Amino acid sequence: MTDHNRPFSDDERAGLYRAIYERRDVRSQFRPDPIPADVLARLLSAAHHAPSVGFMQPWDFIVIDSTEVRQTVLDIFEEENRKAADNYSGERNTQYKSLKLQGILDSPINLCITCDRSRGGTHVLGRNSIVETDLFSTCLAVQNLWLAARAEGIGVGWVSILNQQKLAKTLGLPEQVYPLAYLCLGYVSEFLDQPELQARGWRTRLPIEKLVHGNGWGQPQANPELKAALKKQERN
Amino acid sequence: MTDHNRPFSDDERAGLYRAIYERRDVRSQFRPDPIPADVLARLLSAAHHAPSVGFMQPWDFIVIDSTEVRQTVLDIFEEENRKAADNYSGERNTQYKSLKLQGILDSPINLCITCDRSRGGTHVLGRNSIVETDLFSTCLAVQNLWLAARAEGIGVGWVSILNQQKLAKTLGLPEQVYPLAYLCLGYVSEFLDQPELQARGWRTRLPIEKLVHGNGWGQPQANPELKAALKKQERN
Repeated sequence: MTDHNRPFSDDERAGLYRAIYERRDVRSQFRPDPIPADVLARLLSAAHHAPSVGFMQPWDFIVIDSTEVRQTVLDIFEEENRKAADNYSGERNTQYKSLKLQGILDSPINLCITCDRSRGGTHVLGRNSIVETDLFSTCLAVQNLWLAARAEGIGVGWVSILNQQKLAKTLGLPEQVYPLAYLCLGYVSEFLDQPELQARGWRTRLPIEKLVHGNGWGQPQANPELKAALKKQERN
Repeated sequence: MTDHNRPFSDDERAGLYRAIYERRDVRSQFRPDPIPADVLARLLSAAHHAPSVGFMQPWDFIVIDSTEVRQTVLDIFEEENRKAADNYSGERNTQYKSLKLQGILDSPINLCITCDRSRGGTHVLGRNSIVETDLFSTCLAVQNLWLAARAEGIGVGWVSILNQQKLAKTLGLPEQVYPLAYLCLGYVSEFLDQPELQARGWRTRLPIEKLVHGNGWGQPQANPELKAALKKQERN
């Protein structure tokens, strides 16, 4: 049995679960300290080792520290966010406007992870039936980076309130390249102990046992042991 | 500083990176041993703690152990895979047909992770500009599960050669629910030391330093330290 096949130690397994449970979508706690080059390289390499359909590796990484570029992106965000706020009225509108939803200038690095939809040619293995699998693969790279960042003490926030066409133009993307994720990265003053939207009363975590079905939609999960084990997993 | 804000120990951090680098897309190495309920619950809970746009949590988990359902899904795969093979000719066609691309019946559990596109109502926070962010969130849940599985010694294979309409019908999904990922899960005889498509000569890993841009597409990454650090990260 080769070394990479030895079982994970308790601490190694705990590290993976810590990253999963203690990861946050950070908007408000960024510190301006720079991210050292070797740490940033570890994060990018973690992303690059995500699975991808047909080993397509459709991602690229645009590392943005220019204040000018970030200010342009912030302007795009603010225009979109004004429109978004109009979707809510009354108390919900006030609550929405009180939420901080980006850390574009507060964080030292912004990172756009893109998806080149033409990479690997016309027939990418495994992508014949579901053409969006390239986008899905790129998401898996985002999550690798997000978890690695948590283990390094770095917070990540995904800014999803952006006009993708304007963002693509700002970053000079070729036509076949989609700006999948616009992320803010930086060390943080703290990681909150629960998702900010839950702490602020916007929405709560769904009970996991309601989300698990057996063999078909709406069919009960028949295994009583799994039901009990799911119940035990409940936490924030 | 609360406990969850203490820095990761070296072993914890190593555990996270082990999961990232030693995770594989498994098709051929499944063992039939059942996955204990408490382990499966940990995997599902890891998925449920992915980030989601507006804390939407659009995912559901259909745990499939029925041989009948799995056989139906295998039939859907085989029909799609025949069409896929026709995209290649000559040596590439022979090579394609020699690849095993699913472990639907070999693995003890299949898991469909779905995305309920109506969850959270009409106006999900953060989803006004990019409506696909619910699908992207569900991908992040897939990657959490994939990494947790690796730490538990469990292999995961994503079967992407499926007709989604037929799969949705097989699983009885409501119209607004999209079957985002169809996964095979099980303990394995071994985790390969590199991606199978690379080992089999289908496609190789791209050099990471070619994928990192500075402040805009095609702009060189100006920081020589980052360049050197990226070069150091190269591995399979």
